[in-house]
Amino acid sequence: MDDTRILLAHGNGGRLMRELIAGIFVRHLGNPLLDTDADAVALPQPDGELLVTTDGFTVEPLEFPGGDIGSLAVHGVVNDLAVAGADPVYCTLSALIEEGLEIAKLDRYIASFARAARQNRMTVVAGDTKVVRRGEGGGLYLSVTGVGVRRAAAPLGMNRIVPGDAVIVSGSVGDHGIAVMLAREQFGLSGSLRSDSASVLPLARAVRDLPELRFMRDPTRGGLATVAHEIARASGHSVLLEQHAVPLRPEVVAVCDMLGYDPYFLACEGRIVAAVAPSAAEAVLSRWRALPEGGDAALIGRIETGGGRVILETGLGGRRVIDELEDDPLPRIC
Amino acid sequence: MDDTRILLAHGNGGRLMRELIAGIFVRHLGNPLLDTDADAVALPQPDGELLVTTDGFTVEPLEFPGGDIGSLAVHGVVNDLAVAGADPVYCTLSALIEEGLEIAKLDRYIASFARAARQNRMTVVAGDTKVVRRGEGGGLYLSVTGVGVRRAAAPLGMNRIVPGDAVIVSGSVGDHGIAVMLAREQFGLSGSLRSDSASVLPLARAVRDLPELRFMRDPTRGGLATVAHEIARASGHSVLLEQHAVPLRPEVVAVCDMLGYDPYFLACEGRIVAAVAPSAAEAVLSRWRALPEGGDAALIGRIETGGGRVILETGLGGRRVIDELEDDPLPRIC
Repeated sequence: MDDTRILLAHGNGGRLMRELIAGIFVRHLGNPLLDTDADAVALPQPDGELLVTTDGFTVEPLEFPGGDIGSLAVHGVVNDLAVAGADPVYCTLSALIEEGLEIAKLDRYIASFARAARQNRMTVVAGDTKVVRRGEGGGLYLSVTGVGVRRAAAPLGMNRIVPGDAVIVSGSVGDHGIAVMLAREQFGLSGSLRSDSASVLPLARAVRDLPELRFMRDPTRGGLATVAHEIARASGHSVLLEQHAVPLRPEVVAVCDMLGYDPYFLACEGRIVAAVAPSAAEAVLSRWRALPEGGDAALIGRIETGGGRVILETGLGGRRVIDELEDDPLPRIC
Repeated sequence: MDDTRILLAHGNGGRLMRELIAGIFVRHLGNPLLDTDADAVALPQPDGELLVTTDGFTVEPLEFPGGDIGSLAVHGVVNDLAVAGADPVYCTLSALIEEGLEIAKLDRYIASFARAARQNRMTVVAGDTKVVRRGEGGGLYLSVTGVGVRRAAAPLGMNRIVPGDAVIVSGSVGDHGIAVMLAREQFGLSGSLRSDSASVLPLARAVRDLPELRFMRDPTRGGLATVAHEIARASGHSVLLEQHAVPLRPEVVAVCDMLGYDPYFLACEGRIVAAVAPSAAEAVLSRWRALPEGGDAALIGRIETGGGRVILETGLGGRRVIDELEDDPLPRIC
């Protein structure tokens, strides 16, 4: 029996499962609220409005330059709460583990999850593990539900967006998508690019008190263009993106040119796209640029009356309509 | 392109994903709180203490006599809240879908999830879908986080159990484990047995006001014997189970005899094991037997001072120690 890898018996409810939970999950995630002997755990109610979000994580490979499935999962959930104007408080973690996963790797990813959760002051209050047979999983899948609190005044929403609003992004787009793709090595490419996977909580906190802020979203699957489509569909107006204003790292441009990808559809995992009244655009830019996470923040477009389309303005006055994403060049990107 | 099955593009954040979410998830689960355009959703705070639990569901096959992965997932989470003395209020749903799953099946399981959630007055407030490549999933995995409220007085816990307490089970054990196993057809057996998958909320509500009630748990993975081991470990006392008092269906006994399984380790998905002061044992039994879910409720054992073991009393005065579960004869049972 290979005791360095996950066995089916690690999921059976018996001794091995108990030892796995104690030795990895409780060791890294333990806190006074987490009671692995309880079926359900009582939560002290924080002050403010409760917000909830849930996300599944299936990234492949499980580790990539700039992160791993553990930190990615925390950032994904924290970021969904942050762009809604909330601070993370609690989360739950459901782990689906494939038979044969190295226990040392699982330990590393859960340690990474714990570190990222601590950094964002998010306490793990409940968990569950299941083991599936070899060939029925992707090594490790995590599903995380996050609970946050919102104390701020101004509610954010796509329905608040009006023509003339500025569109701002907090940093370069597509780094996560290309970094994970390169880490797969299936294209015979490699590079120094790192995923942007990070908490956007400092960025969100820096601007969420601005009454002119209409809406924030982290552009994950489907990237910047998909957020623009969501805005266009919800508002009925068009989103104009200026091609030369969108921050793109040279490695991202090079790989996209080589493989025919559109960088506007690539996933980010540590960026915010914001819509803001033009009068406050400078305030958002300067607040973001003052943070290490926002050094490359840029005004990249604006909202135009009607149409409900996403339009890319090229340098020479040209305009190209960006359609909604159809096929999927990069499964398991997050 | 086969439009009756899940494609990778159903997970890319684009048009197909949007249509899948609208056509299946929102159609079945939609309610005023669920906003699929939002990153995180604000929850009205219910009165009472908030309880939270999370569970992953990987059952195979996805449908079995008596249920499917949708209803099983709801019951699993509702039951964890119910045995903690809470009523379900909210849940989140993370679905990991394997490329190639028939869309009609997904629709059926999500409809089943919705029906079971409605029956238990549990509102789906957030969701997420991911698609993994063929061969990297088991058709469909669901992770559900449930939020409940507890208004009752008496807190329940294994630490309240004392020697002399009665151990009661609400119905026959092992039905779920054997029904799912038979549904796999890998043993060349079939039968009329149905899973016991059901909400135990009516059972929990019927007895949770009894001050003599110490502890309740739904015996899922690892079955009755694993709950007994949890009690023995937490209390330091021994759990005595009377072999002839444990309700077992003839089909369960027959399959266990044939394949060498121990029925006390088989999963249930709609039963409660309760520890109660002896003075209230009759009250629990009569309240449970008055319900359709509790017709076979039985007093099956008692707590004995010290030892920390699980002991099976056979009919002729014999005693057999039941060890903790080691191997896993039935992966993906829940």
